[in-house]
Amino acid sequence: MSKPVCVIVGVGSGNGAAFSRKFGAEGYRVAMLARNIDYLQELAAEIPDAQAYQYDVTQSDRTAEVFSRIESEMGAISVLVYNAGAGAFANIDDSTVESFQRAWEVNARGLFVVAKQVIPQMRKLKGGNIVIIGATASVKGGANFTPFASAKAAQRSLAQSMARYLDPEKIHVSYVIVDGVINLERTRKAMPDKPDDYFMHPDDIAESVFFLTQQPASAWTFELDLRPFGEKW
Amino acid sequence: MSKPVCVIVGVGSGNGAAFSRKFGAEGYRVAMLARNIDYLQELAAEIPDAQAYQYDVTQSDRTAEVFSRIESEMGAISVLVYNAGAGAFANIDDSTVESFQRAWEVNARGLFVVAKQVIPQMRKLKGGNIVIIGATASVKGGANFTPFASAKAAQRSLAQSMARYLDPEKIHVSYVIVDGVINLERTRKAMPDKPDDYFMHPDDIAESVFFLTQQPASAWTFELDLRPFGEKW
Amino acid sequence: MSKPVCVIVGVGSGNGAAFSRKFGAEGYRVAMLARNIDYLQELAAEIPDAQAYQYDVTQSDRTAEVFSRIESEMGAISVLVYNAGAGAFANIDDSTVESFQRAWEVNARGLFVVAKQVIPQMRKLKGGNIVIIGATASVKGGANFTPFASAKAAQRSLAQSMARYLDPEKIHVSYVIVDGVINLERTRKAMPDKPDDYFMHPDDIAESVFFLTQQPASAWTFELDLRPFGEKW
Amino acid sequence: MSKPVCVIVGVGSGNGAAFSRKFGAEGYRVAMLARNIDYLQELAAEIPDAQAYQYDVTQSDRTAEVFSRIESEMGAISVLVYNAGAGAFANIDDSTVESFQRAWEVNARGLFVVAKQVIPQMRKLKGGNIVIIGATASVKGGANFTPFASAKAAQRSLAQSMARYLDPEKIHVSYVIVDGVINLERTRKAMPDKPDDYFMHPDDIAESVFFLTQQPASAWTFELDLRPFGEKW
Repeated sequence: MSKPVCVIVGVGSGNGAAFSRKFGAEGYRVAMLARNIDYLQELAAEIPDAQAYQYDVTQSDRTAEVFSRIESEMGAISVLVYNAGAGAFANIDDSTVESFQRAWEVNARGLFVVAKQVIPQMRKLKGGNIVIIGATASVKGGANFTPFASAKAAQRSLAQSMARYLDPEKIHVSYVIVDGVINLERTRKAMPDKPDDYFMHPDDIAESVFFLTQQPASAWTFELDLRPFGEKW
Repeated sequence: MSKPVCVIVGVGSGNGAAFSRKFGAEGYRVAMLARNIDYLQELAAEIPDAQAYQYDVTQSDRTAEVFSRIESEMGAISVLVYNAGAGAFANIDDSTVESFQRAWEVNARGLFVVAKQVIPQMRKLKGGNIVIIGATASVKGGANFTPFASAKAAQRSLAQSMARYLDPEKIHVSYVIVDGVINLERTRKAMPDKPDDYFMHPDDIAESVFFLTQQPASAWTFELDLRPFGEKW
Repeated sequence: MSKPVCVIVGVGSGNGAAFSRKFGAEGYRVAMLARNIDYLQELAAEIPDAQAYQYDVTQSDRTAEVFSRIESEMGAISVLVYNAGAGAFANIDDSTVESFQRAWEVNARGLFVVAKQVIPQMRKLKGGNIVIIGATASVKGGANFTPFASAKAAQRSLAQSMARYLDPEKIHVSYVIVDGVINLERTRKAMPDKPDDYFMHPDDIAESVFFLTQQPASAWTFELDLRPFGEKW
Repeated sequence: MSKPVCVIVGVGSGNGAAFSRKFGAEGYRVAMLARNIDYLQELAAEIPDAQAYQYDVTQSDRTAEVFSRIESEMGAISVLVYNAGAGAFANIDDSTVESFQRAWEVNARGLFVVAKQVIPQMRKLKGGNIVIIGATASVKGGANFTPFASAKAAQRSLAQSMARYLDPEKIHVSYVIVDGVINLERTRKAMPDKPDDYFMHPDDIAESVFFLTQQPASAWTFELDLRPFGEKW
């Protein structure tokens, strides 16, 4: 029961699964949250002390219940990795107000409501780690990324406000700017001509996410970028 | 009827009024929009060819009607100044999800729905100007500005996406980062010890907002900051 | 003799000439500085109250003499436009330490030594304007812009330090990020297939440079970007 | 002889020593460079396979000789940590052109000439790591940091240009923005009232520097910030 608890919000077969495996391998009890419970349960079976929770980050009114259940079933949360990140890639003509709002609900409001639940648990532990998985769109509003970029910018700002506010309480908030295409079945099919080197491996991203949670408190990072070595930027 | 039409969204007695007066003085027909119609009507009486429209930027479903009414009563919109900018200044503990959402609705979603209405009118004119009034919070998430900063970051990203997409159609989108305290009855009362020099004058801000709409198309600005000469930054 | 004095450092046939004409037309006595005195003298003949001074910004030890001569011949300097901006575009393999140093001497050290001379003259006038002509390279170190980008970054930082230090004395320091190709005989020949719209017109850039010097002191801009409406960014 | 070679440029008793110890402990042969050879030799005695080299980064003309000596004595360089970082903290009035130039020579030109020597050695190894120790001043030109900030901005831009150019060759270039006061005898004496928590520990900074050199190539960081948990920013 003394293993620390890590929650991964937004677990699909890519980054979320890699983060879950990494923290599991490093001695954490891992709570995995996603809308799709079936995949989560398969994954939970592979990782010792992992549990699956069905949760949609846009359902703000379920957040309190889910996170208090995690606390009572697994213990107070020590690490939160916020990996929910869907959002439409479209110019303003092709974006609807619904897609604009939904991207923000997933990326920004979802983080807000989850953080509100997690912070008190971390305070009980006198510290914790919140790592948010961002994207280049958080610092660049591309013409064809209107809903996603605006939502990611809102998320990054929220992460900054939290870092400034919570770091002095030893709750380390950090933001990872992922700048590349993740190696997934879906992306490989969509870009069949790209070489292996073009893609970012979730396990490699997980190394940096885990590292952020292990930094000593006199030298904490708020923001880092990650990209494959061959990426144009 | 050949005077160009300028819409100011978010007109109180400070910046919005100054922008309205400036564009009125420069030969525009000015449509002034705000929740509080009483003040708008007084102001409209002072400015030639100005009209007041009651409009709350969070009422997305009224936007189409209001902006088509402006078009039919005043003509196609040539300049939009988006000045709606309320939002809570609070750390995450003191912020509610409602305040977090409302700040975003006013600053980001409000701009999105207004832009969707205005862009087609500007296309009829083969060009136009959209100036968004931002704040330093758009580029810095302060510990005690959680809802406001996140909303302003979302707004600035949206402005960037629009600039990249619309500028090639000769619709000039620009973002003004206001970095100081506006000279208003309210702010002067709240900070009685500050000298005159501490405050930004709405008429002075209006000079730069107007200038942005007059830049020749081979040298357009997306972003500029404005602050009083004595401001620490 | 009561006309204000404007100094343009780095006057070729493009931006420097346009700035000189603009300030001349707006009622300034214009001191034009460049290495090549022949072109300057032709230009001086066209602009009322303009004078040409031979000056190479890398000759730090001549700076004091040149600027005191300007003061005695034309009066204390009210506006400085620093337009010297040469620098090699090359990757690190193709850059020499000489080209790396020279780019910095022109863009950064040159501004430093000129500012040291101009600031005391502006203090006599109880205020002034320093506008520095920068480039996108100042905020982005491209692979093939090593010497130029590093020099422009050094210049922009110097401009920021000066703005924070001098603005409270009513010496307004601002930085213009030019993001596009200037319309010059040379650039047109080098890019014969580009349409007119692709290029930035020096006269159009001059409008924004002049505007910066006219902003009222409660709403000063430090930084603005300029690009042609069709530019990809 | 098969241990990889790490060069630390700029080794005093703080960060440079900590980096040297860390890479030594992790199985690197460490070449330590500094102006003051006496301290280096003491330190070299403590670290297995470490060697001391007298080198002043402003002596560009000695660079080739020193780095070819390292290659022949220790082997081709696999990791470079550029830690030279002196520079005057002063406003423009109190800065001389000499101090402005010297700060740039140490931070920017020194990195340029060292990188020119190290890159060919890394190419022989088909890869390598260059980590540059920067500062907040690299992204903010404070009023009283004129020479230092301008030099650090020039350095950061150079690092960016190198990252974009060299990363595709598997030479990973990264930049660390140190945002805090280092825990040194000197700084503790200068700030006797500050608590332990206020200071950054060189060993803690070394953890992140080392981590950057170990990131897998599909997820490389260019830039990260480091600050103590209680720092205001």
